[in-house]
Amino acid sequence: MSLHPAVAAVRRCVRRSLDGLEPGDTVLVACSGGADSLALLSAAVFEGRKLSLRVVGVTVDHGLQDGSADQARKVVAQMAELGVDETGSVRVQVEGTGEGPEAAARQARYAVLEQMREHLGGSLVLLGHTRDDQAETVLLGLTRGSGARSLAGMRRGFDHYRRPLLDVGRDDTVTACQVQGIDFWDDPHNEDPGYTRVRVRRTVLPVLEEQLGPGVAAALARTADQVRDDVEALDALAQAAYDELRGGDGLPLDALHDHYRAIASRVLRLAALDAGATDSELFHAHVRALVDLAAGRTRGDVQLPGHVTAYVEDRCLRFRTTAVTP
Amino acid sequence: MSLHPAVAAVRRCVRRSLDGLEPGDTVLVACSGGADSLALLSAAVFEGRKLSLRVVGVTVDHGLQDGSADQARKVVAQMAELGVDETGSVRVQVEGTGEGPEAAARQARYAVLEQMREHLGGSLVLLGHTRDDQAETVLLGLTRGSGARSLAGMRRGFDHYRRPLLDVGRDDTVTACQVQGIDFWDDPHNEDPGYTRVRVRRTVLPVLEEQLGPGVAAALARTADQVRDDVEALDALAQAAYDELRGGDGLPLDALHDHYRAIASRVLRLAALDAGATDSELFHAHVRALVDLAAGRTRGDVQLPGHVTAYVEDRCLRFRTTAVTP
Repeated sequence: MSLHPAVAAVRRCVRRSLDGLEPGDTVLVACSGGADSLALLSAAVFEGRKLSLRVVGVTVDHGLQDGSADQARKVVAQMAELGVDETGSVRVQVEGTGEGPEAAARQARYAVLEQMREHLGGSLVLLGHTRDDQAETVLLGLTRGSGARSLAGMRRGFDHYRRPLLDVGRDDTVTACQVQGIDFWDDPHNEDPGYTRVRVRRTVLPVLEEQLGPGVAAALARTADQVRDDVEALDALAQAAYDELRGGDGLPLDALHDHYRAIASRVLRLAALDAGATDSELFHAHVRALVDLAAGRTRGDVQLPGHVTAYVEDRCLRFRTTAVTP
Repeated sequence: MSLHPAVAAVRRCVRRSLDGLEPGDTVLVACSGGADSLALLSAAVFEGRKLSLRVVGVTVDHGLQDGSADQARKVVAQMAELGVDETGSVRVQVEGTGEGPEAAARQARYAVLEQMREHLGGSLVLLGHTRDDQAETVLLGLTRGSGARSLAGMRRGFDHYRRPLLDVGRDDTVTACQVQGIDFWDDPHNEDPGYTRVRVRRTVLPVLEEQLGPGVAAALARTADQVRDDVEALDALAQAAYDELRGGDGLPLDALHDHYRAIASRVLRLAALDAGATDSELFHAHVRALVDLAAGRTRGDVQLPGHVTAYVEDRCLRFRTTAVTP
């Protein structure tokens, strides 16, 4: 019996992500019960067995929908049936963080995954994001207009986490499940047009494909890969430049101007954060105001979130913190 | 009578682009007769007079449509009426360059504009591209998936050319014409869905605005500005790295690996071009193949367009040219 190309593609990507592991190592697979994560889990079981790895399926119940506990139990049974060595199910409490329900759920999910990984001594945690998820992320970032950082999409890996399916389309994971007889769950959230991401998936990307030709999702994902490399290099160069320039007396502007604009603006951002500006509220407009101030195009004070004020004195950019009355 | 905000916005952008010119200097304005370039021309006349500049309106007849000579004559009359000091009209022969009719027309247009500029001793040539043109360019680039370079959009200026209206929306140029009583021409090409750019303008961008909220065009243009800075820095750093690494004996791979991936891949691209690979046919896939070869992930030869072959020998990346039988 020949292997279906969709199954082969998923397995190949998973195999690559397991490179370097030793027999006996533990790999966690985050599984929602959707097609992406079930295709991932099934491939991880197959490839993990060849490498004598211990594969643990983990599902997270966010408790956001009615019947979510039942769904979690169903996923646990399904993961066991697909042959994982162990299963885990965790219920999390999603709390408002002021960044919206999607961000709060994501934060809670990673926190429990990390606890599970530490508890089980896991070498890796595999996440089921596909090329289509990546394309959606890039489009969402693009329309925020916050520059290369938001175009860079999701990383292929960070710390102990890997996203093996970023080179695989969602269609492939659905097909991989179907040809292997794996029942998958359609999360009703994935159809709720109240979520921007759902509108990108259901309306924006299909229009792009229809008007500009097929392969748009792949092109977006490819762009993310390249932009991510660019951002990584520039962030590292800026950090090195900042470490050299920083001092007790502020940022010397003449030396700053020796750097390319892309690096100088990042150095200004780092300096602002160091001075206590609030990361999540420090927008491009603030950095641009710092750039203009540093270049002498504007004068006076620049107010930054976190009660930090930037100003120029003795050809140096300096910061002061405004005392906040409690 | 108070000035309409749209007219004020166009004039402000034009004024900024004329910064540094001296009385008596000559400024050319490229004008198609559309709303963008007529709003630009009218603002250039107004601002140019204040600075005692000589403003020349130039129209290019591509001869691609029936009646294009009549249209060119009409634009010349209109430019004179709007008060330019001189008018020029040039007819160009658009020849197939193998890159499509849009690219051929663009190339022909810039060639005659440059001739006109040299002939008239022009300090600057103003081009009427708006923020919406920029947004379209970014989306087109994004869906090609060719990385940051294609996301960077159009430059604000190069050599003697400036694009003052990149911060102004197309709506504003239309309004600016209307409130000043300027009749503008709707180029039928702008409505022909056979052009990808027209589909982006008429279908893709409206869907993005509708689904993701207003301000998408502005966000795309803002992204382009930031990405352009990034690309400029990385290209310059890569050129410096290449100048240091290059030698008669190929590219030393150990030294190449000291550089960030974003820079190393650009160095490989420069080396391939230097070896004679064809610029317009050297795609991202070729560069990625060179990256894999240089990293030792693949072995053997990498074929590049222009009959150039890359290979590794003595820990150096080398190139040979294949003789072509005539």
